[in-house]
Amino acid sequence: MSISKQKVIANYLPNTTEPGTKADAFAPSNIALCKYWGKRDVELNLPINASLSISLGELGSHTTLSESDRGQDQVYLNNELLSLDSPFARKVIGFIDLFRRDLKQPVQVRTVNNIPTAAGLASSASGFAALTLAIDKFYRFDLALDHLSAFARMGSGSASRSLYQGFVEWHKGSREDGMDSCAERLALEWPGFRIGLLKVATGEKKVDSRSGMQRTVESAALYSAWPQQAANDLVAIKRAIQQQDLECLGQTAEQNALSMHATMIASWPPLLYWQPESVAAMHRVWELRASGVPVYLTMDAGPNLKLLFQHADEMQVRDAFPELVDADIVAPFG
Amino acid sequence: MSISKQKVIANYLPNTTEPGTKADAFAPSNIALCKYWGKRDVELNLPINASLSISLGELGSHTTLSESDRGQDQVYLNNELLSLDSPFARKVIGFIDLFRRDLKQPVQVRTVNNIPTAAGLASSASGFAALTLAIDKFYRFDLALDHLSAFARMGSGSASRSLYQGFVEWHKGSREDGMDSCAERLALEWPGFRIGLLKVATGEKKVDSRSGMQRTVESAALYSAWPQQAANDLVAIKRAIQQQDLECLGQTAEQNALSMHATMIASWPPLLYWQPESVAAMHRVWELRASGVPVYLTMDAGPNLKLLFQHADEMQVRDAFPELVDADIVAPFG
Repeated sequence: MSISKQKVIANYLPNTTEPGTKADAFAPSNIALCKYWGKRDVELNLPINASLSISLGELGSHTTLSESDRGQDQVYLNNELLSLDSPFARKVIGFIDLFRRDLKQPVQVRTVNNIPTAAGLASSASGFAALTLAIDKFYRFDLALDHLSAFARMGSGSASRSLYQGFVEWHKGSREDGMDSCAERLALEWPGFRIGLLKVATGEKKVDSRSGMQRTVESAALYSAWPQQAANDLVAIKRAIQQQDLECLGQTAEQNALSMHATMIASWPPLLYWQPESVAAMHRVWELRASGVPVYLTMDAGPNLKLLFQHADEMQVRDAFPELVDADIVAPFG
Repeated sequence: MSISKQKVIANYLPNTTEPGTKADAFAPSNIALCKYWGKRDVELNLPINASLSISLGELGSHTTLSESDRGQDQVYLNNELLSLDSPFARKVIGFIDLFRRDLKQPVQVRTVNNIPTAAGLASSASGFAALTLAIDKFYRFDLALDHLSAFARMGSGSASRSLYQGFVEWHKGSREDGMDSCAERLALEWPGFRIGLLKVATGEKKVDSRSGMQRTVESAALYSAWPQQAANDLVAIKRAIQQQDLECLGQTAEQNALSMHATMIASWPPLLYWQPESVAAMHRVWELRASGVPVYLTMDAGPNLKLLFQHADEMQVRDAFPELVDADIVAPFG
């Protein structure tokens, strides 16, 4: 039996605070190089394995939290007012309810995602991270970032990593209340590191990553080998970043991502997020690499690819993937 | 250190026999429902896990072995004389050399595969099985089928299963010389069982299954969970055949095949036999099944699919896959 989110959060909030009138926050999207796949606690989103990501600089979510003057909560997404019954509004309001003492005090939430539509990136990580930061400011909790990271994690696991820029490690943690399962920024920079956001397919995915993860843990025999692989991969990836060794980073991150997909493919019913275009793009990456260009791929629970390479090879990557426009190439360290 | 093939075979051959002048043999192709993936002994092709297949009736390899009147070995494949340096001829002659005492007595080997070209099936299993049977007849060894199955296995692992029609189990075995790692026909029939040979892509594969298997065992962390899964799947598949329960058979066989592919995908370098067309066909199978038609897929180390269904649903399968012509639909029990 796990502790409830409410109970954990209540333990860490200051006793009395007065909300302000308005708070703004931004949080970046992040791409995991060592993936989060599998929960040991579904209520608190506590992971089975630690993970490591790179944040995407200015790409992410801007969230503004203010008093509502309409007598009820209001949720805007990309400047559009949503019905309070919509899945997005319910998730956002449900999350805010974990923090506000006076449920009679309605709020207005505005979230704008500036992730290029061509990227095919999920926005729940940056969204929950920005919302957590806005809540902290609006209610004047003034909590430490590691606690806010743990709170963001309760909204969406990978949101814990979107509290920070740069390379970020999300610790698995061992406490029952999960408060040590939070992320921290690694003191490592890699100015030449580049990510290419390669969107190959559109369309709503039929199985969200929350359910996909659960199905894998419950039905894929091969999943039993995943936690140890992820632990080993994380060590190798951290060392590769320290040494700015793209070959080692790329190999480990690509094998890590494909192993995560392998556990999905080995589930029942089979979980295959790949479309024909995904496989075509994967083969293209491997051909480019075989031709001598150091480029690697990673994929999340969806059909799109993210390419990992260095600034020095950017022209060759662009030549091979002319669909990558400027906005699809991210330089995480500016 | 494993024993050599030569030494194992020599222990089981009768002391003196006189070759005949000509021997004919046929062996069917087989499709594994529980896959063979991983060797515990590379020299003898001893498997890490037991496997179970269905043979394809009249589809397979015809082999004729006779004295050569040209003073040297001659190898014909589909009525074409091959160079003795070609990979196929070298494999065939190398295998025959394990059995013939008088290396100065040249032979002529003729192999004809009647597998429809559209099927995209490997012919090494039926080829080595037919060759083993022809060797036994030509040299008048008159050995028991289980020994011949073990010998065929040394040519190509899955050839051990092609010695028999119907449902066939290849036992893992435990002896050092591998002679208990042979196949046997299961005393089970399923007249309504059908296999659809769905070829979706052409082209030589870049990595043969022998190397692919080895790469997986050596580099995929997820492989560690495969042997136990295969053992469980084999029990479930046998029970499903006994009960003629297509849903149970199909689910287990499909998950088994996809788990095998998952171990390849989790290897380094990644081993993805799928082409875009494979993934498109997989999604089509899943859509057909979602629409209520009990059809399942299995795949070997290549891009093509094999569909598993029952005679009662043949029309619906043909409607959904109009590329399946009569010759692509196999009724293993006539």
